[in-house]
Amino acid sequence: MFTVIGERINTTLKKVQAAVAERDADYIQNDVRLQTEAGATYIDVNGGARIGEEEGDMRWLIEVVQEATELPLCLDSPDPNILEMAYGLVKQKPMINSISLEKDRFDPMIKYLEGKECRIIALCMDDSGMPKTIEDIVSRARTLVEKLEQIGFKRDDIFIDPLIQPMSVDINNGTIAMDAVKIIMTELEGVHTTGGLSNISFGLPQRKIINRCFLAMMIANGYDSAIMDPLDKDIMGLMQTADMVAGNDQFCMNFIKGVRAEKIVS
Amino acid sequence: MFTVIGERINTTLKKVQAAVAERDADYIQNDVRLQTEAGATYIDVNGGARIGEEEGDMRWLIEVVQEATELPLCLDSPDPNILEMAYGLVKQKPMINSISLEKDRFDPMIKYLEGKECRIIALCMDDSGMPKTIEDIVSRARTLVEKLEQIGFKRDDIFIDPLIQPMSVDINNGTIAMDAVKIIMTELEGVHTTGGLSNISFGLPQRKIINRCFLAMMIANGYDSAIMDPLDKDIMGLMQTADMVAGNDQFCMNFIKGVRAEKIVS
Repeated sequence: MFTVIGERINTTLKKVQAAVAERDADYIQNDVRLQTEAGATYIDVNGGARIGEEEGDMRWLIEVVQEATELPLCLDSPDPNILEMAYGLVKQKPMINSISLEKDRFDPMIKYLEGKECRIIALCMDDSGMPKTIEDIVSRARTLVEKLEQIGFKRDDIFIDPLIQPMSVDINNGTIAMDAVKIIMTELEGVHTTGGLSNISFGLPQRKIINRCFLAMMIANGYDSAIMDPLDKDIMGLMQTADMVAGNDQFCMNFIKGVRAEKIVS
Repeated sequence: MFTVIGERINTTLKKVQAAVAERDADYIQNDVRLQTEAGATYIDVNGGARIGEEEGDMRWLIEVVQEATELPLCLDSPDPNILEMAYGLVKQKPMINSISLEKDRFDPMIKYLEGKECRIIALCMDDSGMPKTIEDIVSRARTLVEKLEQIGFKRDDIFIDPLIQPMSVDINNGTIAMDAVKIIMTELEGVHTTGGLSNISFGLPQRKIINRCFLAMMIANGYDSAIMDPLDKDIMGLMQTADMVAGNDQFCMNFIKGVRAEKIVS
């Protein structure tokens, strides 16, 4: 079953930032309820956009969000101190967004993660920058999985983000991501792959059809999670359809349920 | 570039059959013009539905269709005598639909094809019936390519149809087709893969979203042609998007052209 990390509670979004600044719990909770009903698996919570306010904003957000949903949270911060505080507040095993191989980020994060009961998004980024080839992505995924297994993480708790690059920069960036995901899901059996998708369409028109088409094609290669907007009915419908076509929906029951709820429309 | 075999001129369709019976050239030619404008690569012509009338109907159709388009035809008949007549009428190198490994069909078709200047759709069907496994599809594809190469066919002229089976019968039928296409396109480098897609959604609701989602996922595995309705804007838009994401659209030019012509809409 596909893991949808709902991306909407993020203070880099203007309306969310305003709601957080005004401590407008109704706005946040209404959004979280909609994401929950729409099929989110995790609610990502990012309260880092107001400089100097992250600790208070995250604390408030985590409490307010958890009043509105039973879903687990995806704690989205680069700061282990913020994550430590947030971890103490969550009611369910959270996901942490994220670790990478950049030394400045890796060392404090791996120290923070040791002994924690959580899942983790692991970015295929190191100090040489964004990955450029299939081998860049796969080799970094291997290192991330190895290091996380060393501190006791199970593969089922590791979500590798291949870091999608725009098609407008290199026409092969779609196949690089797809091939890398296929190798990761085969060679590192048991891990998950996830990430934001919209970078694929950067610089191109009609971005939404590119993003959802790409998601279906990634699912054809084993991709089993995304950081996405659960309220985008078109991408959610195509995702659920692709998940069925990929053989992940026994007796097509989720698909049929989605059709009956009018969430999947031709 | 993806090869679209436009499926609309087929006398099993009621309106087409009526138009053929009445020798209504306007109806046929209007449809053919629409398919051409919509991006068809071939116009499939099937005049076999009225019993005892195939020869006259095909002769009339081929002449009428060619007056309306510059596109090559896909001659759709199981009868080598009809195909021989049709072959004499076409203005451009046609595609023939189809040969299979069923003995009754294979022997006369291979004899007919020898020395012809055409492309061919080759079905992964033999006397034991429809393929059930990846290996069924791939081994039949190997045999078809071998036999067609023996009589002088180039791989670029061979379009393998893996014969899609419904998801409602076996939840793995999507991945079986995708994996088989991936192997065929790699191992038998230079051949094409094609076929009708709509069987995948037989017995399920909201079939059109399944069909187009499946097409995008097949394209992710190398599928480079389909027998389809070029007037279905949704499937054509997703096909063109998927073809770009698969890296087949240098500088995204076809995609951008499609967007400008309002053929691709988010």
